[in-house]
Amino acid sequence: MSEKLVQSTGNGLHSSIPKLNVAVIGAGLVGSLAALNFARKGYEVDLYEYRQDIRTAELVQGRSINLALSQRGRQALAEVGLEDEILSTAIPMRGRMLHDIKGNTSIVLYDPCTKQCLYSVGRKHLNEVLLNAGEKFPNIHRHFEHKLSPFQEDAEAKADLIVGCDGAFSAVRQQMIKNYGFNFSQEYIEHGYLELCIPAKNNEFQMPANYLHIWPRDTFMMIALPNQDKSFTVTLSMPFKVFADIKTPKDLLEFFIKYYVDALPLLGEERLIKDFFKSKPQYLLSIKCNPYHYKSKAVLLGDAAHAMVPYYGQGMNAGMEDCSLLFSIISQTGITLDKALLQFTESRWRDAHAICDLAMYNYVEMRDLTKRVTFKCRKFLDTTLFRFFPTIWVPLYNSVSFTSMPYNKCIANRKWQDKILRNVFYTVLSGALVTGTALYVMNL
Amino acid sequence: MSEKLVQSTGNGLHSSIPKLNVAVIGAGLVGSLAALNFARKGYEVDLYEYRQDIRTAELVQGRSINLALSQRGRQALAEVGLEDEILSTAIPMRGRMLHDIKGNTSIVLYDPCTKQCLYSVGRKHLNEVLLNAGEKFPNIHRHFEHKLSPFQEDAEAKADLIVGCDGAFSAVRQQMIKNYGFNFSQEYIEHGYLELCIPAKNNEFQMPANYLHIWPRDTFMMIALPNQDKSFTVTLSMPFKVFADIKTPKDLLEFFIKYYVDALPLLGEERLIKDFFKSKPQYLLSIKCNPYHYKSKAVLLGDAAHAMVPYYGQGMNAGMEDCSLLFSIISQTGITLDKALLQFTESRWRDAHAICDLAMYNYVEMRDLTKRVTFKCRKFLDTTLFRFFPTIWVPLYNSVSFTSMPYNKCIANRKWQDKILRNVFYTVLSGALVTGTALYVMNL
Repeated sequence: MSEKLVQSTGNGLHSSIPKLNVAVIGAGLVGSLAALNFARKGYEVDLYEYRQDIRTAELVQGRSINLALSQRGRQALAEVGLEDEILSTAIPMRGRMLHDIKGNTSIVLYDPCTKQCLYSVGRKHLNEVLLNAGEKFPNIHRHFEHKLSPFQEDAEAKADLIVGCDGAFSAVRQQMIKNYGFNFSQEYIEHGYLELCIPAKNNEFQMPANYLHIWPRDTFMMIALPNQDKSFTVTLSMPFKVFADIKTPKDLLEFFIKYYVDALPLLGEERLIKDFFKSKPQYLLSIKCNPYHYKSKAVLLGDAAHAMVPYYGQGMNAGMEDCSLLFSIISQTGITLDKALLQFTESRWRDAHAICDLAMYNYVEMRDLTKRVTFKCRKFLDTTLFRFFPTIWVPLYNSVSFTSMPYNKCIANRKWQDKILRNVFYTVLSGALVTGTALYVMNL
Repeated sequence: MSEKLVQSTGNGLHSSIPKLNVAVIGAGLVGSLAALNFARKGYEVDLYEYRQDIRTAELVQGRSINLALSQRGRQALAEVGLEDEILSTAIPMRGRMLHDIKGNTSIVLYDPCTKQCLYSVGRKHLNEVLLNAGEKFPNIHRHFEHKLSPFQEDAEAKADLIVGCDGAFSAVRQQMIKNYGFNFSQEYIEHGYLELCIPAKNNEFQMPANYLHIWPRDTFMMIALPNQDKSFTVTLSMPFKVFADIKTPKDLLEFFIKYYVDALPLLGEERLIKDFFKSKPQYLLSIKCNPYHYKSKAVLLGDAAHAMVPYYGQGMNAGMEDCSLLFSIISQTGITLDKALLQFTESRWRDAHAICDLAMYNYVEMRDLTKRVTFKCRKFLDTTLFRFFPTIWVPLYNSVSFTSMPYNKCIANRKWQDKILRNVFYTVLSGALVTGTALYVMNL
C-alpha cells in the first residue's frame, strides 16, 4: 500500500493516519454515512453504488421502507450534524401496541420512566439526507449505477482503503472470504416476510401513530410502523410453508379474518390481495464474520459485516454505530491504519455477534412471548426496578435501544439481572416456606 | 435441465434416473470415487482436476500425506470393489500409543474386544488406485490441469449434473453460497499444523508400527502415523502463537527437548530443523453447509460439503460415506434426480454437522483428556461394558470409527450412555449413603 500523505483539510479533526484515497462500496445508509465521515476528515472518497441515485429513483426495491431509529443511529447522525434534521420529520413510537386475535389492543411503553422512544424514519428520506449532506464536500466523488469488482485491476479499485458497505450479499466480503483465517457464517431462517400497506384515510392515520403495532400469533406475526404520509408499512412475517399454503384470494381473506381481523378493513381487501400476490416473501438471514478487515486494505461495515434478522430494529443502528466506532479509532493520535482496522475488528465482533443473536431471539419474543403472563410479569418488574434505579437497572430492551452500552455488555447485564431476580425469588420462597412451616408448627 | 435419456449400460445396477452427463469437479479421493460410482451406473462422466494427474506428480502439496481409513471408507471402497486392494498395503493401527513428557509410552487399544483397527494409508496411493480403477471405464473422461468455472457458459459446464468434490475451498460451493436459503459457516481454529518426518532406519520403523502415536501436551500435541516405506509422518498441532515463538533452530531444539524428548532423536535434529523452517504452519478449518444440492443441477460431496479438523480421522471416511449414501439414494427405483439430491441433503446434513463437531471435540480429547484419570476411568468402563454387551454398549469412538451408525446417532448413543452411567453413579452413591447412615445409626 502506498504511503501517500495528504494534509488534513483543517476541519478541526485530528488523525495521524495519512489522508488516503478511500473507495466506499455501497451508497446506502451506512455507505453514505461512512463517506461523509471520511470526507469530513479530509480523505479523498470515491463512493460507488450499483443502483441508480436513490434521490432520483422512483422505488426502492427489496428493502424495508421504514426503519426504527434509536440511540446508536441517532448518536452516529449527531456526529455528522444530521440528528436534528432527521428527528424533525421522524415519527416517535413510544411503545408497542399489541393487537390480540380478537382485535383488542393493549400498550406496552418502551420506557415509562424516562420517556425515550424509537423513531420511525423512511429509508429513502434518510438516505437522501445523508447523500445531500455529502454534496457539500468536493472530496466525495459519487459513481452511481457502477458495478465494481473491488479487488480487480480496475482504475477505481486502486484505492488505498476499500470500505465495504455493500450489504448482506457484499461483494467485498465475497473476496475476503477466501482469505485464511476469515471466519464466516450465513444462516437463513425458515420465515420470510412480505410488506403490505395500511393507507392514510381522509389524510389521517388509521391507527394510533405513535406506536409500533404488533400482532403476535405464536409462530408468526405482523407488525406496522407509521410513515410520514400517514400510512403504515405492514410487515407480515411467517414460515415460508404458511405463505405457500395461501394460494388464492379466498385463502388470504380467510387467513386474515382468522388471525388479523382488526387489520383487514384497514388494509382493504382489494389492496391486500394485490400487495400479497404481487411479490414473493423475502428471505431473512443472519451474517456473522470475523475479522472485518484485511490488513490495511479493506474493512466491512454494516450489513456486509453483520446482517441480522430485523426483529430488534437494530440493523441500521448497528451499522451506523460501526461508523462511530471506526472513526473514533481512526482519530486516535499516532495510530496506523492497519492497527486501527485490527482494533476495529477486535472491539466490534463480539458486540456484532451479540446483536445478531439478540435479533434472532427477539423474533421469538415478539411473536410469542409478548402475550405470556411471565413476559408481562418480568416487564413489570423490570419497569418498576428501572423507575427506582434508573442507572443501575436498565432492562435489556432499553440498554440495546436507548443507550450506547456495547451489545455484548447488554447481554451480560441481562444475565446479571436474571441472576439477582432468581436469587431474590429463591430467598423469598425459602422465607415463605420457613415462615409457613413455623406458623404451622406453632398452630400444632 | 434437459431430460436426456441414456440407456443403462447393463452393469446390473438399476436406477430410474436418466443417464445424464455428469461433471465431477475435483479428482481427489472423493471425486475419483464419485466418478467411479457414476461410471459403474452407466453415466457419462467428465472428471475435472485443476492439479496435474496425481499419478504423474512428484509431490502432493498442502494436504496430509497419510490418512486413517476406517469402517465408512472401507465400506465405500468395498462398494466399488477396491477394499481388498487398499487393505493389502495399508498398515493396521490397533490403538493409540501415548508418549508422556518424559518419553514413557502406554497403549490404549481401540477395540480390545473385537480387535478392529484403523488403517494408515497413503493419500497418493489411494488416489492412484481410485484413478486407475476408473481407467477401465470408457465413459469417464479425465481433464487434468483444467481450471473450471462451473456455472459459466463453458462447453464443459453444460453438464446435467455438477458434482462438487473440490475440497474445503470448493469453487462449486462458492457459486451455491449466493443462492437464497444456503446456510454456510467456515470456522478457523487458532491452531495450525506442520508435517515432519521420522524416517526409516536400517529399513525398519523407528517406533512400533501398528499404533497411532500421540504426544498429548494439553494445549498442543503431536501425532505420528506409519507409512508403507517404514517412515512415520508426524503432525505437530499447536497455536499459531506457539509456532511464531519458535524463531531459530535453537528455539526449536529447546522446544523439542522440553516437550518431545523421545521423538527428537528419531526425527533427527538436522532434518527437524529443515522440515520445520521450510514451510509455514497450515490453517485448519471446519465447514458446514445446508443444503448440499441446488435443484437437480449440483451437489457437494466430501470436504466441499463438510470440511473438518483432522482429529477424528473421519474427513476422508465421511467424504467416501457421502458417495455410499448418494448412490444408494440415486439407485432407488422411481426416484427423480431433484428428489434424490434433496433426500441426500436431508439425510446427510445432521450427520455431517455432527462429525464436524466431534472432530473439533476430539482435538481437545487427544491433546488433553487422554492424560487424565477421569478419561482413563471412562475408557475402562466403556471397554468393560463393550466386552460384555458388544451390541448394546458401543463406545463413541468405536461407533464412529468401526460402524456405519449415522454420526448423529453416535452422539445420541453416547448421551444415552452418559445418562445411564450418571444414574448408576447416583444410585450407588445414594445406596452407599443410606447404608452408611443405617450402619452409623445402628452403631449408636
